[in-house]
Amino acid sequence: MRAGTSGTWRTAARHALPTRLAAALSLCGALLAAPAIAQDAKPGVRADGTATAPAASVPYSAFASPQARAFFPGMLAFGAKAPPIGGPIAASRDFYDGQNCGRAELMEKLYPVKLKRDIIAGVGVDVVLPAQGVSPENRRRVLLNLHGGAFLWGAHSGALVESIPVASLGRIEVIGVDYRMGPEHVFPAASVDVENVYRELLKTHKPGEIGIYGCSAGGILTGEAVARFIHDRLPVPGAIGMFCGALVDLGGDSSYVAPMLNGQGVPTTPPLGLATLPYLRGADPDDPLVQPGLSPALLARFPPTLLITGTRDFAMSSVVHSGELLHQAGVPTELRIWDGMWHSFFSDPQLPESKQAYAAIVGFFDRRLAR
Amino acid sequence: MRAGTSGTWRTAARHALPTRLAAALSLCGALLAAPAIAQDAKPGVRADGTATAPAASVPYSAFASPQARAFFPGMLAFGAKAPPIGGPIAASRDFYDGQNCGRAELMEKLYPVKLKRDIIAGVGVDVVLPAQGVSPENRRRVLLNLHGGAFLWGAHSGALVESIPVASLGRIEVIGVDYRMGPEHVFPAASVDVENVYRELLKTHKPGEIGIYGCSAGGILTGEAVARFIHDRLPVPGAIGMFCGALVDLGGDSSYVAPMLNGQGVPTTPPLGLATLPYLRGADPDDPLVQPGLSPALLARFPPTLLITGTRDFAMSSVVHSGELLHQAGVPTELRIWDGMWHSFFSDPQLPESKQAYAAIVGFFDRRLAR
Repeated sequence: MRAGTSGTWRTAARHALPTRLAAALSLCGALLAAPAIAQDAKPGVRADGTATAPAASVPYSAFASPQARAFFPGMLAFGAKAPPIGGPIAASRDFYDGQNCGRAELMEKLYPVKLKRDIIAGVGVDVVLPAQGVSPENRRRVLLNLHGGAFLWGAHSGALVESIPVASLGRIEVIGVDYRMGPEHVFPAASVDVENVYRELLKTHKPGEIGIYGCSAGGILTGEAVARFIHDRLPVPGAIGMFCGALVDLGGDSSYVAPMLNGQGVPTTPPLGLATLPYLRGADPDDPLVQPGLSPALLARFPPTLLITGTRDFAMSSVVHSGELLHQAGVPTELRIWDGMWHSFFSDPQLPESKQAYAAIVGFFDRRLAR
Repeated sequence: MRAGTSGTWRTAARHALPTRLAAALSLCGALLAAPAIAQDAKPGVRADGTATAPAASVPYSAFASPQARAFFPGMLAFGAKAPPIGGPIAASRDFYDGQNCGRAELMEKLYPVKLKRDIIAGVGVDVVLPAQGVSPENRRRVLLNLHGGAFLWGAHSGALVESIPVASLGRIEVIGVDYRMGPEHVFPAASVDVENVYRELLKTHKPGEIGIYGCSAGGILTGEAVARFIHDRLPVPGAIGMFCGALVDLGGDSSYVAPMLNGQGVPTTPPLGLATLPYLRGADPDDPLVQPGLSPALLARFPPTLLITGTRDFAMSSVVHSGELLHQAGVPTELRIWDGMWHSFFSDPQLPESKQAYAAIVGFFDRRLAR
């Protein structure tokens, strides 16, 4: 397995709120007994709709599995060890690659596959085939996976984590795409790479036989890539999946609530969004090729879409809002949410909720792709 | 409009946590500067998965409409005026009937309908027909509405609030059912009434031409009624909608988070669930006719289902968990969530999100009912 670039966006986004938020949270702790905070500590709603709340504790969700409950504190403790996002990129990539290599090894034991590194249209890819062979109905179908990792890491090992269970359980070919990332590259480099791979696939597949999915940054990139296809007058794929990241910038209720549910307290400053990612520096946040959710006309041309998130995912609100925007645009849209589950939870295959998510992904593409 | 029984479950559930929670919250405020709370006030996660958080404020969701933002504080202030749930039932019914009559009048101006009081199988009903006439494709179709109101109020005026926009926009007949409620009646009286009306409709309609939907207690009753049909070997209806209440008891992340987002702070005791409702006194919470979500075999026979909730609905987690249980049982299930929206938000027709919810309901039944 190639050393280097891997991981998911979970820890990224936490560290994307770094010094400012950390300072604010420390300050908040220091000020807790002071009158200014005591005032805020009363439950209530201000005239502008801001809700205030006293110190609180929230038990782990009784709707989630015992396995998820047991996994939850250790998952958070591991994430807290991640190098700061402002530090050397190699350290971040090493950290997440280590995590993802471990996950991928476990995946391979649970979900037998055949793996091949390849290059398509000049872009490095992982071709993942089910060990038991592609099913007859999937003979002409293919899925592209766009890995997560804050547009900073996740190449190869992260793509394997996201591709292996889907390829094996779905008995379908999955191609993980090592698109260009920050900080070395900026928007639209990743969209260009995905489009080039997609154009190559269009030589041998009908568009309806191709699906694209991704998690976190990969979910966002899936939307951006489809927007780019439409802009470049390419046919859209048969179906797409955007998980723990979708068509609009981070924001809404979950960007405040999820950190609290994950033991980090409610952020005291507005959540920092996509614009803070190195890959998107200089990009226009109002460009529908960056945030396709801003353009109803673009969304109206999107293919059937699967959305996945959890109630402890800071991206939940952006995902459910993307869902409503797609519905308003008339796009067949399926939304799946697991209570108590966190950003990219299905990167860990031990959890019953992860197995349910794999089944959701496999079932969706089976129903939606052309036969 | 008959005086008396109406309303939704929103305020009910808030008042269903009354003295104990109110006392706990006051206590929490009083103790805020004390060491015991200061300890809890540090952000973190305990070994059992309980997340702790300092005092916080959360702005209103930027994903919700400006109209919803403007409506939100007044909606909460009005709800705070509701009589205590332990008080005389007549006072509660008067309060919610007043609210619902106002809403229904507004509904009638926005969504023209013809109304008729009637009795079906001995049960009082409101027959709601679109003023412009039923559409040709809905000529043989009918929807039953089971109103919300904590199984305590909501008869007639609450049913009109839930039926008028769907009948008018969908150009379909909607029948609001005045099922028996607590405290005068207990489970399964409401399920029996719904079944009797349904049996009568089966004399003139194919099951696939009948849809059933409800909000809050009405969402829960929709699930309980279908469970009863299956138990009694009746064919299931063509499709159902469960909104802001579904197949399992209240619980999960939203039962802690939604009160905070609605300015009431995080509850310091476990949320009180269905068993505290007068209608369900003495009922076995493990009975699948009370909580159909407990029986995968029962769920497997459920018809296609639409679920609706919002990120500020205390029932959100129970609704999304119901969705996952239905998916696992193989039931075609559609989930719609609006960021920043509260329990039964679409009872108020002024909000863009309410119009989107009506369109979701109308579109779902149009796709799913037999033609």
